[in-house]
Amino acid sequence: AHDALRQTLQARIDGKTKPLGALGRLEDLALQLGLIQGRPDPVARQARVIVCAGDHGIAHEGVSAYPQEVTWQMVMNFLAGGAAVNVLARSVGMEVQVVDAGVAHDFGRIAGLVHAKVAPGTANSAVQPAMTAAQCDAALARGRALAHQAAEAGCQVLALGEMGIANTSAASLLLHKLAGVPLEVATGRGTGVDDAGLARKRAVLTRAAARTGTLGAFDALCEYGGLEIAMMAGAMLGAAERRLLVLVDGFIASSALLAAYRLAPAVRDYAVFAHQSAEAGHAALLQALQARPLLALDLRLGEGTGAVLAWPLVQAAAAFLDGMASFAAAGVSGQSA
Amino acid sequence: AHDALRQTLQARIDGKTKPLGALGRLEDLALQLGLIQGRPDPVARQARVIVCAGDHGIAHEGVSAYPQEVTWQMVMNFLAGGAAVNVLARSVGMEVQVVDAGVAHDFGRIAGLVHAKVAPGTANSAVQPAMTAAQCDAALARGRALAHQAAEAGCQVLALGEMGIANTSAASLLLHKLAGVPLEVATGRGTGVDDAGLARKRAVLTRAAARTGTLGAFDALCEYGGLEIAMMAGAMLGAAERRLLVLVDGFIASSALLAAYRLAPAVRDYAVFAHQSAEAGHAALLQALQARPLLALDLRLGEGTGAVLAWPLVQAAAAFLDGMASFAAAGVSGQSA
Repeated sequence: AHDALRQTLQARIDGKTKPLGALGRLEDLALQLGLIQGRPDPVARQARVIVCAGDHGIAHEGVSAYPQEVTWQMVMNFLAGGAAVNVLARSVGMEVQVVDAGVAHDFGRIAGLVHAKVAPGTANSAVQPAMTAAQCDAALARGRALAHQAAEAGCQVLALGEMGIANTSAASLLLHKLAGVPLEVATGRGTGVDDAGLARKRAVLTRAAARTGTLGAFDALCEYGGLEIAMMAGAMLGAAERRLLVLVDGFIASSALLAAYRLAPAVRDYAVFAHQSAEAGHAALLQALQARPLLALDLRLGEGTGAVLAWPLVQAAAAFLDGMASFAAAGVSGQSA
Repeated sequence: AHDALRQTLQARIDGKTKPLGALGRLEDLALQLGLIQGRPDPVARQARVIVCAGDHGIAHEGVSAYPQEVTWQMVMNFLAGGAAVNVLARSVGMEVQVVDAGVAHDFGRIAGLVHAKVAPGTANSAVQPAMTAAQCDAALARGRALAHQAAEAGCQVLALGEMGIANTSAASLLLHKLAGVPLEVATGRGTGVDDAGLARKRAVLTRAAARTGTLGAFDALCEYGGLEIAMMAGAMLGAAERRLLVLVDGFIASSALLAAYRLAPAVRDYAVFAHQSAEAGHAALLQALQARPLLALDLRLGEGTGAVLAWPLVQAAAAFLDGMASFAAAGVSGQSA
């Protein structure tokens, strides 16, 4: 059935009034969307970006250019609609859902926030596991439920973004442990540490990595992950269960996809890598996943900003498959002999 | 005044709640849009894509995979709304204007088409100049007027696209003559000629190029250009006159920008290169213009499809500059000492 559908989709794509393959990666996107939805006429009408926020014990080692309080302050900025992801999502017509996955701050019963806090931040993974197995399970399960809710709300596409001071450290450690990428390649400047800060960050991550040997995906998440990273990984798995296309943002979101992929390889078929981040380790992470992102805009912000900017391309892919005329219908000649 | 505005724009960009430079090329776009419009709060609300169609005498040398009649058949497809550019423009919210710049077909008084035909196709540039100086002047002037009309209709952004069987041959010859790029680098498969076809195309273009020596931009357009290429070049010049941002599509549209740039270098400041085409010569053309395109989606269709897909990015750039909170307004801490 899958092969028959693939052939049907390819024939529809090739019959459009354009040279074979001339819409390039939009054609790949259309094919992927059709296979995900299990139909020759896939739709891309509604999309949501879920921004998962969490704090990191390793921040206390001085690995970030910003103080930890910025995590909750940015959550307030998301709720007020003034952050980059809000503005870009409005611009492209996506809804934003803001989730407290594990911020070290008491938001009370503030409106608009999805209260899914597993713990007020992770423990410091430089000296101990970031989270317990129960915490990691909870984060994965809540992420999965958020994806299911998005499907029930009518979304065909789910983008994942994040906020968490020091979370490039967590992503670098996951990349190192799950794909064997050396820490000097996997570690970058995050939101902008200087040379001394980068040296300190590398020393901290080297110490953290030395605590453990080879790890499976679940154990790596427990040892080094973030609550927001585990929740994104869960949401990716939940999206695949409901046949949603997943727009993967930059370095942190890609580390969540890497973990999800090691937990359940089929999730890879649902993923579209939205953009190539300027963060140093992202190229190696994409290589580990054999992924080629759609956009290369030098973004290094996270929040889901890159994923959001890829939504018009997914819509365009569905639109050409649905709306373009065929050679026969339009009365246009094909290639000469 | 220009430097003061640049500083004002950069300060606005840097004050937003994000690490410095973290929105990458969107920041460059916002700056460029502000400088073009001469204001710190530029807008990107309305955009039009003008699709210029023209035929090429050199098609009779067998340089294309498609017969010449496809040019007018595709114009009919554009008017019916079933071509790729129609569908993608609808998807991103742009209006489409279809222009007969020089198609070898009598469309009568058909509705929806802008009748700007300079001649029913060019002469065969393998053996004689493609157009007269008067024809080239007319094409440039009509293009300029179309851009002025777009400005009067309320557009801030103008995209240019084209249709014309054999027009990659014209673009390759322009690239060769205006930027000194060897024909073996400048010549590609267009809509998909096979190896024998590519060899024939190269032989024809070599013969055509040998007819003339060094040429200025206007003379190169007369000798080797297309009527649709000259009209696009005129539209680009007219857009700059009215302070519109110009979205440059792929290989053919970039060759029009190259000619326009040599006629009036200031036009370069108004241009945004939308995408890297899969057509062989485009990389060399972009290098000649020191241009780095926004998208790399392996498109090789023309019509303005790549330019259209970049419109959401321009909107996103204007949106973040307008809508994002500043650190001060959002109460978010800056970088740690």
